[in-house]
Amino acid sequence: MYDVAIIGKGPAGISAAINSYARGKKAIIFGGDSKKVLLSPIIDNYPALPGITGVNFMEALNNHLSKTDVVISDKSVLTIYAMGESFTIQAQDEMIQAKKVILATGVNFKKTIENEDKFLGLGVSYCATCDAPLYRNKTVCVVGYNDEAVTDANFLSTLCEKVYFVPMTNVKDKSFNDNIEIITGVPKSFEGNMKADKLNLKDSSIECDGYFIIKDSYPLSSLVPGLELDGPHVKVNKNMETNIKGLFASGDITGKPYQLAKAVGEGQIAALYEHES
Amino acid sequence: MYDVAIIGKGPAGISAAINSYARGKKAIIFGGDSKKVLLSPIIDNYPALPGITGVNFMEALNNHLSKTDVVISDKSVLTIYAMGESFTIQAQDEMIQAKKVILATGVNFKKTIENEDKFLGLGVSYCATCDAPLYRNKTVCVVGYNDEAVTDANFLSTLCEKVYFVPMTNVKDKSFNDNIEIITGVPKSFEGNMKADKLNLKDSSIECDGYFIIKDSYPLSSLVPGLELDGPHVKVNKNMETNIKGLFASGDITGKPYQLAKAVGEGQIAALYEHES
Repeated sequence: MYDVAIIGKGPAGISAAINSYARGKKAIIFGGDSKKVLLSPIIDNYPALPGITGVNFMEALNNHLSKTDVVISDKSVLTIYAMGESFTIQAQDEMIQAKKVILATGVNFKKTIENEDKFLGLGVSYCATCDAPLYRNKTVCVVGYNDEAVTDANFLSTLCEKVYFVPMTNVKDKSFNDNIEIITGVPKSFEGNMKADKLNLKDSSIECDGYFIIKDSYPLSSLVPGLELDGPHVKVNKNMETNIKGLFASGDITGKPYQLAKAVGEGQIAALYEHES
Repeated sequence: MYDVAIIGKGPAGISAAINSYARGKKAIIFGGDSKKVLLSPIIDNYPALPGITGVNFMEALNNHLSKTDVVISDKSVLTIYAMGESFTIQAQDEMIQAKKVILATGVNFKKTIENEDKFLGLGVSYCATCDAPLYRNKTVCVVGYNDEAVTDANFLSTLCEKVYFVPMTNVKDKSFNDNIEIITGVPKSFEGNMKADKLNLKDSSIECDGYFIIKDSYPLSSLVPGLELDGPHVKVNKNMETNIKGLFASGDITGKPYQLAKAVGEGQIAALYEHES
C-alpha cells in the first residue's frame, strides 16, 4: 500500500512527488515526460530559472525526482477506483493500492471517438496487455495515437489472427508483423448493440471482434468514475481536494492559467494537505 | 500610474513581478529580501532546484527580477487606499498610483503593542520621514524593531529636542546622537484620551509628544483598511482576489502551507488574472 499515488509526471506531478517524499511518504508516480514542457523553446517565468529551455527544465525536474525514493512507473493508468479508505489503481495489467491519489495529468482537449465511452469494456479497450487474451485467434483493430500503439499492435498480432492498425501519428519508419493491415482514415464512431460491432472511419469502416484505443491519456470520466468536473477541468477546493475523499488534483487539469509556477504550487499543496481518513 | 504594484519582495512577490512583466505590464515591487528565505539552510522541495541554499535561492530570484523592467523600491508601504478604479499607495513620503495591487508581504504573527492601532495617526506613527516635521523641538520615542529604526532615531534627533529609543533588537554596535536616550524594556500598551500620551513598558513608562514604531511589516488592518481577513491570513478566492476589487494576495499571507512552490504559484495566478475594471 502506497501512501500516495501521483498520476502524471509533468511539473505538478513531480512537485507533488518531491513534497510527498519531503514528508516521508511512500509514493509512486505514473507517466512520461510532459510533452508540453519539452516543446517549450524558452521558459521565462519560472521563478529563479530565467530563460531555461523546456528540455532543460524537464531534465532538472527529473533530476530532482531522482534524488527521492519515489517509485517511477511508465505504465498507463486506466482506472482509479475509490474504495472508501483507499484507492485501487489499474495501471495496465497491474493493480496498485494507495491511501491518497493526486491527479496531475494535464488538461486534455482531444476529442474521443463517438460512443468510445459507451462501449468501453464492451469491445472497446484501452489496454492491450490487459485484454489481449480475450481476442486469441480473433480479429482486432488498434487505433494508435503514440509509439506504444505500434508495440501493442505487434504484440496483439502474435495472439490474434489479424490486426487492423489505424495510425493517428506518422508510422512510416515503424515495422509491423505480416498479419497487420494498416488502414488510413479518421475514426468517427463506434456502432453496435450490446457491444461495439463496427468502427466507422471518415470514408470506410472496420468490422472486427475487438477495438483497442492506445493513447497517452484517457478521458477523466473513464479514468475516475464519479469525479466532479467543471467543463474540461476537475473541480477542486483550495486544498486541491476533489469531490472524492482522498483524491486530489493539481496543475493544468484544475484550470487556467496553464503555467508552470501554478502547477508546482498546486502539486505541493495537494501533497502536503493531510486529509482526514 | 502603474499597472501593478506588488507589496513584498519574497518568492510570491517576485513571481508576481516576473509574470506581470511577461504580460507587458508596468509594475513596481516594494520590499527587501525575504528573511525567511535567506535563513533557510537548504531548500529541498522547490522543483528543479534540489538542495539550493536560501541565500542562493534569494539571489536567483533577484537575478531573475533584474532581467525585467519592474521598478524596485525599498520604501516601506504604510497604507494602501482603494480609490475605486485604482489604488493610492503611501510608501513612506511618496504616493504611488496603481490599477492593481498584489499583497505578498508574508505572514506576520508579531504582536502589536496594545492600543497601537487605536492611536495610529493620533500620536503614534509608522513613518519618521513622513511625520518628523510634526515634532520639531519636541520629545519623541522610537520603538525600533530593525536597523532602519536606528537611522530614523538619529534623523529625528536632529529635529527633536530629545528622543527616547526602545530597542527591540541588539544595538550594541550602533552609534546614536547625544540627545538620544536608550530605554531598555518591553513595550506593553499606549495610554491616552484623544491621543497617545504614555507608552507603558513592562517595568516603567515613557511620556512624550509622539511615538514612532519602526518595523519591517505593519498590521494588515492598518495597511489596507477594509481588507477581509481569515484569522492571520487574507481571505482570497481561487484567482487570488481579496474582497477589494483589484486587490490580490499571494504567498504565506493567504494561508498554509508556508512553502515556496505555493508562493510562486499564487504570485503567478495573481499577476496573470485580469480583473474587470
